[in-house]
Amino acid sequence: MADEFTLSCPIPISQYPQILLAHGGGGKLMHQLIEKIFGAAFANDYLDERHDGAVLDLTPRPPTSPPAPPRHGEGSSPFPFREGGWGVRSGVGGEVRVAFTTDSYVVRPLFFPGGDIGKLAVYGTVNDLAMCGARPLFLSAGFILEEGLPMETLWKIVQSMRAAAQQAHVQIVTGDTKVVDKGKGDGIFINTAGIGIIEHDLAISPKSVRPGDLILLNGDVGRHGIAIMAVREGLSFESAIESDCAPLAEVVLKLIEAGIEMHCLRDLTRGGLASALNEIAQTAQVHITIDESAVPVREDVQGACEILGLDPLYVANEGRFIAFVAPQDAERALEILRTFSSEATLIGQVLAEPRGLVTLTSRIGAQRILDMLSGEQLPRIC
Amino acid sequence: MADEFTLSCPIPISQYPQILLAHGGGGKLMHQLIEKIFGAAFANDYLDERHDGAVLDLTPRPPTSPPAPPRHGEGSSPFPFREGGWGVRSGVGGEVRVAFTTDSYVVRPLFFPGGDIGKLAVYGTVNDLAMCGARPLFLSAGFILEEGLPMETLWKIVQSMRAAAQQAHVQIVTGDTKVVDKGKGDGIFINTAGIGIIEHDLAISPKSVRPGDLILLNGDVGRHGIAIMAVREGLSFESAIESDCAPLAEVVLKLIEAGIEMHCLRDLTRGGLASALNEIAQTAQVHITIDESAVPVREDVQGACEILGLDPLYVANEGRFIAFVAPQDAERALEILRTFSSEATLIGQVLAEPRGLVTLTSRIGAQRILDMLSGEQLPRIC
Repeated sequence: MADEFTLSCPIPISQYPQILLAHGGGGKLMHQLIEKIFGAAFANDYLDERHDGAVLDLTPRPPTSPPAPPRHGEGSSPFPFREGGWGVRSGVGGEVRVAFTTDSYVVRPLFFPGGDIGKLAVYGTVNDLAMCGARPLFLSAGFILEEGLPMETLWKIVQSMRAAAQQAHVQIVTGDTKVVDKGKGDGIFINTAGIGIIEHDLAISPKSVRPGDLILLNGDVGRHGIAIMAVREGLSFESAIESDCAPLAEVVLKLIEAGIEMHCLRDLTRGGLASALNEIAQTAQVHITIDESAVPVREDVQGACEILGLDPLYVANEGRFIAFVAPQDAERALEILRTFSSEATLIGQVLAEPRGLVTLTSRIGAQRILDMLSGEQLPRIC
Repeated sequence: MADEFTLSCPIPISQYPQILLAHGGGGKLMHQLIEKIFGAAFANDYLDERHDGAVLDLTPRPPTSPPAPPRHGEGSSPFPFREGGWGVRSGVGGEVRVAFTTDSYVVRPLFFPGGDIGKLAVYGTVNDLAMCGARPLFLSAGFILEEGLPMETLWKIVQSMRAAAQQAHVQIVTGDTKVVDKGKGDGIFINTAGIGIIEHDLAISPKSVRPGDLILLNGDVGRHGIAIMAVREGLSFESAIESDCAPLAEVVLKLIEAGIEMHCLRDLTRGGLASALNEIAQTAQVHITIDESAVPVREDVQGACEILGLDPLYVANEGRFIAFVAPQDAERALEILRTFSSEATLIGQVLAEPRGLVTLTSRIGAQRILDMLSGEQLPRIC
């Protein structure tokens, strides 16, 4: 099955002979890896959306409607009785649309102020479904355990997943367990994949963002990454900084129920607010501008960032998201966000040109480019 | 959110204070881990099926039909506009039923005769969907990369996944990449989750197995595990033993199309044929008996098993499955299986008593109990 992809690795070996920690850091290198390796090899209409998850149309079609042609397939299916097809959303009524997403969790330490790897593994995937505008329903759970993991630790994590699943109203319906030899893992890695159902007609996707959209943020940023780093670096504060780890489906469903015209949702995990804005600006080919002073950062988080040499705009969150909203609906949307967090706020807007750029007006009024993270900032924060 | 699960770890710490390699080996310890830890904490109707995947009903229900009560939920959902529910299959027409499954792949070495971790990650999950009687459609892919993994290795694996996805007619529609520090992983671990659509009314599940069912096997057993072990142990044979790694959806869909009354399908991965039979005998509460001489084992595989001290009935396969078929359909089913492999054969039958037991008639005519694997036989073979 030779094709152009069998020829040579699309990332020059001379430049990056090996995987670096930064390839998982949410910045430029990760972006390159996703685009050039995974995006190139697996290209299809779903993946090309560059969304937090894939939106799948599972509506059974009558045999007369031709199936959507597979982008990387070999032509027609050899399988029997394929009645119709399952293609990208067609826009007609009576459809069954689901969101499908996955994340692996490798956070270190396993337990941190405000959460643990189990809670993260449930809420992280629930939130990716929410960012597709879906009601999260079902999760899978794949465990990679390292030989020697204390049984009590596993039990604590599983209990935490159970509680988080209850909280987020999802069921863990299928799973898998693998064990690797001591020294070939790190206690426990968890993968969760999720399925949610989409109950509306909005096309919530980075590609739907357009000039004029206003950008809302649902609370203060930087807490998750700082909570993790504080433990690792042995920093102590007057009061512990806790992760913001929280499920986001409820607030998103309220926005949808209220009929808010939302164009895109994105949670601010690896790479933080800055990376999320850059990814969306590039995918949507728009100019995004935000006001630094409008972005809430807690004083202790700001202080910790200064000690650690970090910019809170690049620090990961696990309960924060941005919503790109049609301007006429922004005020109503903000009211809804504020019923969940009083710090929800308007932080910026979308302009047409220059395309693919994110700019920031600083506290002293200067404008500068807010670039995607270059190196690796915080390894293994999720 | 305190409940009985917060009290103490259900596996006595005094007995198993830590995770052992055997907890991932497909035998008794893995079974205990799944039952007592994951099964207990996450209990719901889907997981309780103890199937290779969950069968989900995604049919939108009118608002008048009450949603299925969640087994571990807090009662009614606080979310807005939940129109109807998504419950376990109700049996009415016009439904949308999907299968959902996940597996992590940690095989070592990454490349082996007849396959590699990428091919395995696609076919393994495709096969779990097929074992639910589903047409595999969509996969997610979660990568856990170890710092220092050669970029070329990653590219080869991704190419292999691409080719396997083409072969199996599935699309990889969403993904995730994490990087862990050197020494905290083992090159690459891959998780795939899969969604398939169910286009028939059969209830294919261990719980559907009943006395009188005949058991068909689609080919020779033991090749995958031996291919892996031969590389690890540096064994060489006249001709290399290649893994049987192959997608199984096409043959399963042909059986369904032919109207074969199938009660259960199970692929023979970790723990091999013996463990699969034991799991099903226990779940269905039946007696399974097979004829050892009917189970095809290649001569070189048998020889390697003798050298390595392994029983081929416990060795993992990646392209083999058993089908529990109503007796009147067994001959037709076998004809279909034989269009894919001439070695497909009838290996045994289901009896009523004693419940939960698997027995084997040996080549010399003696009957013995075929137990589930006790210790750990072949770590990291998938």
